[in-house]
Amino acid sequence: MAIVAFSQKRIKSNLSNYFNYKLISKDKNARLGKLFTAHGEIDTPIFMPVGTAATVKAIHLKDVELSGAQIILSNTYHLMLRPGYENIRKLGGVRKFMGWEKPLLTDSGGFQIMSLGKLRKVEDEGVTFKSHLDGSKYFLSPKISTDIQNALDATITMQLDECIPYPASYEEAERAMKLSLDWALKSREAFENRNGYGQFGIVQGSVYSDLRRQSAKDLTKLDFDGYAIGGLAVGEGQKLMFETLENTTLHMQDNKPRYLMGVGKPDDIIGAVKRGVDMFDCVLPTRSGRTGQAFTSRGQVNIKNSRHNLDIRPLDNSCSCYTCKNYTRAYLHHLFKAQEILGLMLLSWHNIHFYLNLMKNIREAIKDKSFETYESYFLENYYSGDIDPL
Amino acid sequence: MAIVAFSQKRIKSNLSNYFNYKLISKDKNARLGKLFTAHGEIDTPIFMPVGTAATVKAIHLKDVELSGAQIILSNTYHLMLRPGYENIRKLGGVRKFMGWEKPLLTDSGGFQIMSLGKLRKVEDEGVTFKSHLDGSKYFLSPKISTDIQNALDATITMQLDECIPYPASYEEAERAMKLSLDWALKSREAFENRNGYGQFGIVQGSVYSDLRRQSAKDLTKLDFDGYAIGGLAVGEGQKLMFETLENTTLHMQDNKPRYLMGVGKPDDIIGAVKRGVDMFDCVLPTRSGRTGQAFTSRGQVNIKNSRHNLDIRPLDNSCSCYTCKNYTRAYLHHLFKAQEILGLMLLSWHNIHFYLNLMKNIREAIKDKSFETYESYFLENYYSGDIDPL
Repeated sequence: MAIVAFSQKRIKSNLSNYFNYKLISKDKNARLGKLFTAHGEIDTPIFMPVGTAATVKAIHLKDVELSGAQIILSNTYHLMLRPGYENIRKLGGVRKFMGWEKPLLTDSGGFQIMSLGKLRKVEDEGVTFKSHLDGSKYFLSPKISTDIQNALDATITMQLDECIPYPASYEEAERAMKLSLDWALKSREAFENRNGYGQFGIVQGSVYSDLRRQSAKDLTKLDFDGYAIGGLAVGEGQKLMFETLENTTLHMQDNKPRYLMGVGKPDDIIGAVKRGVDMFDCVLPTRSGRTGQAFTSRGQVNIKNSRHNLDIRPLDNSCSCYTCKNYTRAYLHHLFKAQEILGLMLLSWHNIHFYLNLMKNIREAIKDKSFETYESYFLENYYSGDIDPL
Repeated sequence: MAIVAFSQKRIKSNLSNYFNYKLISKDKNARLGKLFTAHGEIDTPIFMPVGTAATVKAIHLKDVELSGAQIILSNTYHLMLRPGYENIRKLGGVRKFMGWEKPLLTDSGGFQIMSLGKLRKVEDEGVTFKSHLDGSKYFLSPKISTDIQNALDATITMQLDECIPYPASYEEAERAMKLSLDWALKSREAFENRNGYGQFGIVQGSVYSDLRRQSAKDLTKLDFDGYAIGGLAVGEGQKLMFETLENTTLHMQDNKPRYLMGVGKPDDIIGAVKRGVDMFDCVLPTRSGRTGQAFTSRGQVNIKNSRHNLDIRPLDNSCSCYTCKNYTRAYLHHLFKAQEILGLMLLSWHNIHFYLNLMKNIREAIKDKSFETYESYFLENYYSGDIDPL
């Protein structure tokens, strides 16, 4: 009842909101679209580089943009602990703080509370947790999370949801899904509508298709500006993730963007696009970059391996990034062996470029109605393994 | 005797060597000049950013160049241990390895053996030491050091010398100076003359003016392409360093570049230019950048200090670097508090820009015969302390 009343109120107030998704074309279930926001347009499918603490780790922001980033993500949990959202509000929001003029999405903090927070306690009203930094106590409710994201000046605000681990029993998944639905309404009510800003709801329900369906359908009534799929890529494996996705996107509106949270590896992204997903984020390209793992068209390469010692070839011959245009595997190998910061910088940049270039190729393939051809081509290469040693 | 014979041989073979220093003008003892090398010209006075392990730490090389670097320095000691000079030779030399097309200077390894090597033993023939990385044993002679720098393809090769700590007795300083002189001859004999490549001798003698004079005069007979002043900035203090410099440059040829090794802070550099020095290198701008210390026109700023928490001003209002043009002190403060790599990247870049811009201003002042006016202006500002908190 509350949901229906809210929905009618929103539809009215949303008339002048130019936060808008346009579905341009489809190639089977893969979607080519465009998202219009207060801070610029976003071509979908898109990958959002993660800027956890208001920095995409080890990459200059101008280089993130140069790599084709159209939107980045920042984490409410990290920013509320340090430097604190009141500070960021005073400094003009995250985008101004970090010097990013394009759109920015903030998560709700829920996921990090589950993965990083200590002594957390989930109640109907919200979550109490202790900071992983200094142990100080915090409380996050749907309204507080939404207010904080407002203070952070996020272009896209996420509802607070409860993320449960995998595997979870049906009963546990149902409880968390229903709680997330309740929090969705409370988050929606707390959202301050500003022209060109949007708020996304999050579909939960673990790997249970009827729970996913119910979550997707009920969320729709809240008329969010987009819908995310949460609680996947938490250990269920690619096959089960793809199956769950199929059972979820089926029940999601065509005229709203769909965002698969925290995913993933390049082949996960390709498979999710195939199943109708438009937006992605993941720490993998930057985190892997910092540990010497490079993503290439021939799969993952561990640059610390001694086989690269005297290899004068670039990481990926088909890559046009700054790292591949200027440096050999031998040099990158040396930087990682010598624990030089430039190694992290060059590999993180390469990986971000690789992901964003993948998304560009995906968009072109959908446009040309050749997505499945591209998928086969990409995966065959990707699974074929690294080039032979010199 | 050996020195004289060698000198005559060199003068002949040097006829076609276009490694050349041109003294353009003087403002009292401050010198404006130009160094011509196989890999490009260098305007002096110049600062050489330090790229110890074939990387200027935490800065993209294109950004080092963008900041005005005309020559960088790399450390023979570090490179001979990792990745090994034979590997670098196979990979085309340090410049090709790290993607730097302009001139590069390598030191001889002597200084790092003294500061980093373990169980070192200095004999007439050379130094035996153990690697600080894995304890393995190495031997470095003047010839081996020169051969390694040849393998590294250094534009400027340094002779092997013995660096002694401060304070040192007269006898100890004399012994080390004479050994360094002997090694200078052996280094010179081992140097492979290539068009546009040069080799520098190193004046030693601690703070004893007669030893410095003897070292400078005897080295001159070896007809090096430039002369360095070693063994300063090792704890003797600025006043004694300046006095020693005056007593040293007095005895150095006018038609060769003079390089003060490992110096220093901005005010050290200004004072050394005033006393006739042309070239400098120091880890300070990058090392300080990694620990949150910024060099500004108003002195050093510790960005980790909480006073910068909400300070929306740039590090240095008069600085045109990427960091100062794009970021607030508040943001830099946050990056350091959150231990984010971008903080090191932005501060290192700023510091390198600051040093190279200082050198540019120095050159312009000498050209305009207004060096002392510039010196007063710079030092007054520099010693006045940071701007008041907001």
